[in-house]
Amino acid sequence: MMQTIQVQSNQFSYPIFIGRHLLASAGLLKNHVGSQVLIVTNDTLKNLYVDGIKKHLAGMQCDVVVLPDGESYKNLTTLAKIFDALLLNNHHKNTTLLALGGGVIGDMTGFAAACYMRGVNYIQLPTTLLAQIDAAIGGKTAVNHPLGKNMLGFFYQPKAVIADISMLASLPDREYRSGIAEMIKYALISDRDFFIWLEKNMPAVVQKNPQALEYAIVKCCQIKATIVGMDPNEQGSRTFLNLGHTFGHAFEAALGYGKLLHGEAVGIGLLCAIELSLSMKFLTEDILDRVRNLLVLSQLPILIPKEVSIAEILAFMMRDKKIIHNDLRFVLLKSIGEPFIAEKIPLERVEECLKKFLGK
Amino acid sequence: MMQTIQVQSNQFSYPIFIGRHLLASAGLLKNHVGSQVLIVTNDTLKNLYVDGIKKHLAGMQCDVVVLPDGESYKNLTTLAKIFDALLLNNHHKNTTLLALGGGVIGDMTGFAAACYMRGVNYIQLPTTLLAQIDAAIGGKTAVNHPLGKNMLGFFYQPKAVIADISMLASLPDREYRSGIAEMIKYALISDRDFFIWLEKNMPAVVQKNPQALEYAIVKCCQIKATIVGMDPNEQGSRTFLNLGHTFGHAFEAALGYGKLLHGEAVGIGLLCAIELSLSMKFLTEDILDRVRNLLVLSQLPILIPKEVSIAEILAFMMRDKKIIHNDLRFVLLKSIGEPFIAEKIPLERVEECLKKFLGK
Repeated sequence: MMQTIQVQSNQFSYPIFIGRHLLASAGLLKNHVGSQVLIVTNDTLKNLYVDGIKKHLAGMQCDVVVLPDGESYKNLTTLAKIFDALLLNNHHKNTTLLALGGGVIGDMTGFAAACYMRGVNYIQLPTTLLAQIDAAIGGKTAVNHPLGKNMLGFFYQPKAVIADISMLASLPDREYRSGIAEMIKYALISDRDFFIWLEKNMPAVVQKNPQALEYAIVKCCQIKATIVGMDPNEQGSRTFLNLGHTFGHAFEAALGYGKLLHGEAVGIGLLCAIELSLSMKFLTEDILDRVRNLLVLSQLPILIPKEVSIAEILAFMMRDKKIIHNDLRFVLLKSIGEPFIAEKIPLERVEECLKKFLGK
Repeated sequence: MMQTIQVQSNQFSYPIFIGRHLLASAGLLKNHVGSQVLIVTNDTLKNLYVDGIKKHLAGMQCDVVVLPDGESYKNLTTLAKIFDALLLNNHHKNTTLLALGGGVIGDMTGFAAACYMRGVNYIQLPTTLLAQIDAAIGGKTAVNHPLGKNMLGFFYQPKAVIADISMLASLPDREYRSGIAEMIKYALISDRDFFIWLEKNMPAVVQKNPQALEYAIVKCCQIKATIVGMDPNEQGSRTFLNLGHTFGHAFEAALGYGKLLHGEAVGIGLLCAIELSLSMKFLTEDILDRVRNLLVLSQLPILIPKEVSIAEILAFMMRDKKIIHNDLRFVLLKSIGEPFIAEKIPLERVEECLKKFLGK
């Protein structure tokens, strides 16, 4: 059974298909591509899936480019490999790029599609939990700069997102669990019932119980699709999706990309955002222990690795895209389901908050 | 005296200011920038203009990045220097980039503005004739790939274009004349009267006669603004601006960027496009000699440098962005002011046409 969620704004509309064995259903992919296809993927996924995809696209020019894996390779140099593949194989303006991978592959493929010949189509085929519920939806494309994560990029929407849950079976455990942090984020910013559902069903989600997993993925995709549809270019409510991310991005950057997985960094970032919300007295309900408990159940870290200093983390935070006029802004919570943007947060408060979660 | 032309579509609206000593009028620039400014320029222009600009922006954070000059540096590596400067100086989302230079600086600055933090403002301060009448208007941003010119880029409009004609005084003669080829192109695609005006006034334009030059620049900017306003993303009539460019780009790429200036390549490209229009019997009026005469008056080349082979040129043409489904498409002419898109042009015709203009 396949569920379809439409991402719909006044500028675009495209489907997210969610289900099992979607890649095995021939028509789905073929209906959404142009006359040429470039599959962008990594070595492991190439061996697992590319032959199958090529079979479904028989008769079409279908090329493959394999990128080195991981956040530390999400840069302009790796991006150039996609451009090389497109040009060496004479891909024209109506080619379609297929992002077969996690958030890193998806972000880079989207970036490449946005600027190849001033814009070609692409489809997201997310293979990680994090990408299926978050990164693949909403058209945020990016590469990192040594001085900051996702500093270079665009809003450029895909033609379709195909979230094949069966693919998660082969995902390494650590990567799978990393995606759960974003699930917790969705619950925190928009849905108290889903938060309570997660508290009850987290063991089932962690064990990849089919029903629990599908329920949670569909729920997250619905939340993301609604928010993206309302505010595609992040001028308002879409910012709420960044709960925990100003902290999380700084942890990733200060540690060097790849030490913490994105979801792991976001998980600790959620704790920091809640602590900051509490210390500023915006949030009156003490949910810190409840969120920490969800992270522990998901075997996610709850402390900032001690290899970094608070000064380093703060330096990266000051470069965050969400900072305007040197004003420290954070997405914080008033209650579960009620996020808001807090401006002019005193640096000392942020520092205190970081101290509380720095590993010993 | 300053003339203002508005570039206006259903998606955007911004002014082109044309006149003398515009940079010296304090308010013009300051009214269009945010709280931080990064001037992107080359070494020569830095020495000529940056101190003056900084004086007008006193009290603002104003940084400068100097790029190596020329088409051969218009690539992802040089682009990274702009990102480095932005991040090292903590430029935020409401910074403004100032493109102080010719088409290369403008294209790269626009590209950087389009993707820095998923989009910041930029202003075009074109310093060459070609940039003032063409490259700086219309939001085409790009860098080159070793396999093709402008292969990577976006449509991303500036906040304003400031075309200060006084700046052309310091422009090297060869670069100045190169811009005249685009003037001839504008006349060919949209205005018989302007074509006849050019035939009469070309000596005055070549000698930078103030009245003639200002008339021609305003005329070209009006033509470009009208076309861009009607078809910002080049899905229809904007393609006509590429008259001579499929040829021209291939000459530049096959020779290696920098051997021929862009306008020089376009000039020869115009001759090829007219010859092809004649040989396909689309064009009945023989204007080849008239256009060649205009190029000769402008001291522009009229033959393809003999260092390249026709096979090399054709190979680059097949990678042109305007090619769809391997179909050779060209902007050709039915008469002066009446361009159209010709599809399915036989390769042999193109070859014959190239042979006719290959240097001995």
